[in-house]
Amino acid sequence: MRYATRLQFLRYFVVVRTATLRDVARHAGVHPGTASRALNPRTRRLVNDETAERVREAAEQLGYRPNPIARSLKTSRSASVGVVIPDITNPLFPPIVRGVEDGLYPAGYSAWIVNTDNDAERESALVSSLRSRQVDGLIVATARLQHPLIEELAAENFPLVLVNRRIESPSVPAVTGDDARGVALAIRHLAELGHERIAHVAGPPWTSTGRGRHRAYRETLQELGLPVDPGLVAGCEAWSEQEGARALSRLLAKKARFTAVLAGNDLLALGCYDVLNERGLDCPADMSVVGFNDMAFVDKLRPPLTTVRIPHHQIGAEAARLLLDRVENRDTPVKSILLPLTLVERQSAAPPAR
Amino acid sequence: MRYATRLQFLRYFVVVRTATLRDVARHAGVHPGTASRALNPRTRRLVNDETAERVREAAEQLGYRPNPIARSLKTSRSASVGVVIPDITNPLFPPIVRGVEDGLYPAGYSAWIVNTDNDAERESALVSSLRSRQVDGLIVATARLQHPLIEELAAENFPLVLVNRRIESPSVPAVTGDDARGVALAIRHLAELGHERIAHVAGPPWTSTGRGRHRAYRETLQELGLPVDPGLVAGCEAWSEQEGARALSRLLAKKARFTAVLAGNDLLALGCYDVLNERGLDCPADMSVVGFNDMAFVDKLRPPLTTVRIPHHQIGAEAARLLLDRVENRDTPVKSILLPLTLVERQSAAPPAR
Repeated sequence: MRYATRLQFLRYFVVVRTATLRDVARHAGVHPGTASRALNPRTRRLVNDETAERVREAAEQLGYRPNPIARSLKTSRSASVGVVIPDITNPLFPPIVRGVEDGLYPAGYSAWIVNTDNDAERESALVSSLRSRQVDGLIVATARLQHPLIEELAAENFPLVLVNRRIESPSVPAVTGDDARGVALAIRHLAELGHERIAHVAGPPWTSTGRGRHRAYRETLQELGLPVDPGLVAGCEAWSEQEGARALSRLLAKKARFTAVLAGNDLLALGCYDVLNERGLDCPADMSVVGFNDMAFVDKLRPPLTTVRIPHHQIGAEAARLLLDRVENRDTPVKSILLPLTLVERQSAAPPAR
Repeated sequence: MRYATRLQFLRYFVVVRTATLRDVARHAGVHPGTASRALNPRTRRLVNDETAERVREAAEQLGYRPNPIARSLKTSRSASVGVVIPDITNPLFPPIVRGVEDGLYPAGYSAWIVNTDNDAERESALVSSLRSRQVDGLIVATARLQHPLIEELAAENFPLVLVNRRIESPSVPAVTGDDARGVALAIRHLAELGHERIAHVAGPPWTSTGRGRHRAYRETLQELGLPVDPGLVAGCEAWSEQEGARALSRLLAKKARFTAVLAGNDLLALGCYDVLNERGLDCPADMSVVGFNDMAFVDKLRPPLTTVRIPHHQIGAEAARLLLDRVENRDTPVKSILLPLTLVERQSAAPPAR
């Protein structure tokens, strides 16, 4: 703020001074401590109903607003939680964020949402900023398997819950989908349709989701007695349409033989759609594609995408509850929650051409 | 918080007391006022470089974190802004929110995002909560044409910027797309393709976008000398797929004669797609559909949606700048910003069948 406008602001503020707790107490004819108890939901029952009502009326008449900043300064608590995500415009995250907010709302907590763009430096600056705002804990959706910042926070015993992805160390609670089971559902579906050579467009190997889904892909093929061919796997550097397109193009360019693709997530599957489209290949007649996430509107794609549904809203809500438990008691034993996934069969997977 | 765990928490906090500014000053061998100036980006240049560096090092060694809550208590400012949206899972809002955050970030402000579900009571509770957290201003995306809460805030001269939608009164700054021009682009495109009887699935009339686009639809038809038939307009109660589907069904049920539909937004257009699909009507061969917004992934729909593009990220970023101007100086004259729109021609609009 420029100095001139800052002075102007301070002057403005002095003139329109808002009512304090002391004003309310005086107006209601009670001690400030009584007024404070009457206005705090946690202590209201310590005051008799008639007095509480008189204080409430005085507060309303004076336009008094309790000052949670003053309160949080005393207790170093702000009834708020930081939510660290890569990018709110990635359709994976709005339902998680909404779930977090719905989980926090009844407890009177609010969420600060920050976007890191998966940039470690930006993330570190944002987390510092959140902590200097005295957030009570963090919900983090940006985890890489090796993640020094998260490990530091965990070592400090700072309340922390990971969503969607985990880190290598089991010391941090996480709420994720049961990816191994989800991949098995997808591969079994393709096998039942008659596919034998199934490729995998794999997510980044430094994410638990990328690595875990890749491992589950290999394991399920093995269980089913289908060929496990490393030449049928192309890895991506990011969870993006562009990377999905590049990966499938590489597989097609080297003339790998396959009739179906399991994409690491729906955005990678969208990239596969683009490549098939460009090359005049029909999905599913020439190539089946299965995604992962069931993000919004994939039922309206051309063709509607067969994919594994992850309950993102529930992931967010469970994470909020887990975090609030840890905020209340930092010695709560670490636990992680694995939510069941389902396969949503639409029109992008069909029997292979003969 | 339960009392037992609250006591436990306070005990914990006493034990691990974090470093204060006074500790940093002592460690660096300077006066606390000097340490404060050295650590505040706004006043750093008032301290010589060598001293500033010594203070910075001391702060780092002690793990000192400046306490913006203490600072905001003094000035009643928290360097934060509330963002009031209907629902983050509506794909319209993530890019607006991201734009707001990108606009606030360089100024050191953060955003609190709250979802109202278009429920006036919930909205009022959330706005009270934001104000009691001392936000510096609000960016509001939930405006109805008649909106007592927004009018109250404006009357108080509370810093406020509307995005996407406006209220009836011109006293509140707003950042929106130039809808009238956008509708004209869409209707002219349909007319050029040869459509004469163009229906409108209109958004809720208590929103500026719903009413404004409906008015522009009539005006453009008139200008082009095409029939303006109230029987070709069906209104929606909400901006949702379900409402879009219900509206088009009503038009089809009463055997209204038309070959193209302008949908009030993309979600309403998606509802139109569903109805055409159910009735075995082909888009665009049997019926052209044009949307509004160009939300994420409508280029991948079946068929890819022709729609009017609104620069949502830019709307958010402009709103953040406008709001920061007002926070710095509440007497800044009210101005509104209208951003130009473009038509994105894809495959959902084609010449009518003969």
